[in-house]
Amino acid sequence: MYNIAVIPGDGIGKEVMKACINVLKSLDIDFNFTYGEAGDECLLENGEALPDTTIELAKNADACLFGAAGETAADVIVRLRQELNLFANLRPVKSYPNTNALFNNLDFMIVRENTEGIYVAKEEEYTEEGAIARRIITKKASKRIIDYAFQFAKNNNKSKVTGVHKANVLKVTDGLFKEVLYEVAKDYEGEVEVEDFYVDATAMYLITRPESFEVIVTTNLFGDILSDEGAGLVGGLGMIPSGNIGEDGALFEPVHGSAPDIAGKGIANPMAMILSASMMLNYLEEYEAEENLNNAILTVLNEGKVLTPDLGGTATTTEVGEAIISAL
Amino acid sequence: MYNIAVIPGDGIGKEVMKACINVLKSLDIDFNFTYGEAGDECLLENGEALPDTTIELAKNADACLFGAAGETAADVIVRLRQELNLFANLRPVKSYPNTNALFNNLDFMIVRENTEGIYVAKEEEYTEEGAIARRIITKKASKRIIDYAFQFAKNNNKSKVTGVHKANVLKVTDGLFKEVLYEVAKDYEGEVEVEDFYVDATAMYLITRPESFEVIVTTNLFGDILSDEGAGLVGGLGMIPSGNIGEDGALFEPVHGSAPDIAGKGIANPMAMILSASMMLNYLEEYEAEENLNNAILTVLNEGKVLTPDLGGTATTTEVGEAIISAL
Ligand SMILES: CC(C)[C@H](C(=O)O)[C@@H](O)C(=O)O
Ligand SMILES: CC(C)[C@H](C(=O)O)[C@@H](O)C(=O)O
Repeated sequence: MYNIAVIPGDGIGKEVMKACINVLKSLDIDFNFTYGEAGDECLLENGEALPDTTIELAKNADACLFGAAGETAADVIVRLRQELNLFANLRPVKSYPNTNALFNNLDFMIVRENTEGIYVAKEEEYTEEGAIARRIITKKASKRIIDYAFQFAKNNNKSKVTGVHKANVLKVTDGLFKEVLYEVAKDYEGEVEVEDFYVDATAMYLITRPESFEVIVTTNLFGDILSDEGAGLVGGLGMIPSGNIGEDGALFEPVHGSAPDIAGKGIANPMAMILSASMMLNYLEEYEAEENLNNAILTVLNEGKVLTPDLGGTATTTEVGEAIISAL
Repeated sequence: MYNIAVIPGDGIGKEVMKACINVLKSLDIDFNFTYGEAGDECLLENGEALPDTTIELAKNADACLFGAAGETAADVIVRLRQELNLFANLRPVKSYPNTNALFNNLDFMIVRENTEGIYVAKEEEYTEEGAIARRIITKKASKRIIDYAFQFAKNNNKSKVTGVHKANVLKVTDGLFKEVLYEVAKDYEGEVEVEDFYVDATAMYLITRPESFEVIVTTNLFGDILSDEGAGLVGGLGMIPSGNIGEDGALFEPVHGSAPDIAGKGIANPMAMILSASMMLNYLEEYEAEENLNNAILTVLNEGKVLTPDLGGTATTTEVGEAIISAL
């Protein structure tokens, strides 16, 4: 039996989570779901956006599912990533049929460092005139994430890892990242190739030759930006799941937010959330269930009959969830 | 008469500069071109990538034209921007005919802050374990660049300025930038609208709804990344000029680099360099010449007969320059 912490959060987070949990319940796996609160509503009700009880719940679970948070997103999700030491943020860029994908042949992974960089948010107001933020890059965290990326490549039949940085300007911090990239690459010589690009060039290449990427590894903020760009390539955030992986814990969440504009209407696309659950199945080594779920999702997309409005359909969140269950 | 400092730099920088100067010489304007050295070759020859004489030359000119630098690019161009206090980096994203533009209807401007942010590169190795970079955002520089963007919008019949930041994570530094955005926007109420997005969302919107942008204003590194992404939208760097504008000086350069892979072959696309010269004409208030030059460039592109290999043609750098001169 798996203990799963479920944190639906705000807005459409709740709606897509409901559909997702129903899908998971229909699988032949013994899950014990325990719910925790976090987000804007939680802040209003309990005076804090991320209560200690939720952090404890997440820490003690075999894996967590997270929906979305509103204004408090940074306080909730960045803190959860740090508290649980979920150092690797996996963000697949994958084209699916019947989505509005600009490119229909993409399948690469962005491996984003998830614990440091400018996200440590050690900011100071140094005078009335302005402020400083610190960007921290350590050898340890760089080695850990780069090694993770190479390992991922090896385990998933990918032949190349692309390191992304801005070492021409950030000579010390990103110089270190680049140095570690080539150090780690040596351990995989003959198995996985390595290359590196500046982050600005990468932002261009993602559009001019996205097929050339297999696994991208980069620091926290660059990963944030490039993965949203990647989402744009394959039709937007409705189809982008993610996994935050640590040494003893993991949290899966759609990359989209709480979407106040459509919240409450029951029309949010639950695919990103359900694909996140599929990544969780992989993490739990439930490979057969993962494959079945992925196939069911593909069936629904290929049929193109039960799709939410963002994909040009008229179905509700619940109906998409049910269609996936029927296809299982 | 205008005194123009010409810094061709390395690789294709030299080649495209030559074509560009020939085009400028064919205009009915009195230019006095003085050449300065900078870049990798200059470092080899003189022991420094950016000699003081070149900085002085640039400071004393009415405007500068810069080609490209190789490995030393950051030391050359970032320093020139800072020494000359060229606070506004203008990067148009514009679709041209017969290019490989993914979108053929784009015409917006990215206004990038050019003097601070993480480009101050105040980095420290704080232990053996890692390093810190500082990102500095001041009220003064933010106000200056945001005001520039609104003024630009007003003068160019644009109805909206989009501020881009990451204020959910960088609450103090980008919080300040966002605050100043809305402060400055008040001065333009009724004339220019304002909106703001997170940088990650913007990276997605640039692909999913690029037509919605008119003027983007953002901090240094975000501008660097988003403008290369913008280049991707309109077919790559061969067509992207830029202007670095200060209170008493300006420098114009193609966004592409020295391209060692094609340097020396005479096949580099000079369009980005020549379009940069056209931005210089605008800066010098030579509006008629600017319009004539832009029309000549458009004629050559529309005819589609004399194009460099990056645009699917077989013409040389020189031939493209000559075709533009003939079309003038
Ligand atoms: C909500 C925000 C703090 C978060 C981030 O920047 O990491 C989001 O953009 C993401 O990518 O998960
Ligand atoms: C060469 C490099 C330092 C430079 C930058 O980062 O500004 C370049 O990428 C650019 O955009 O002009």
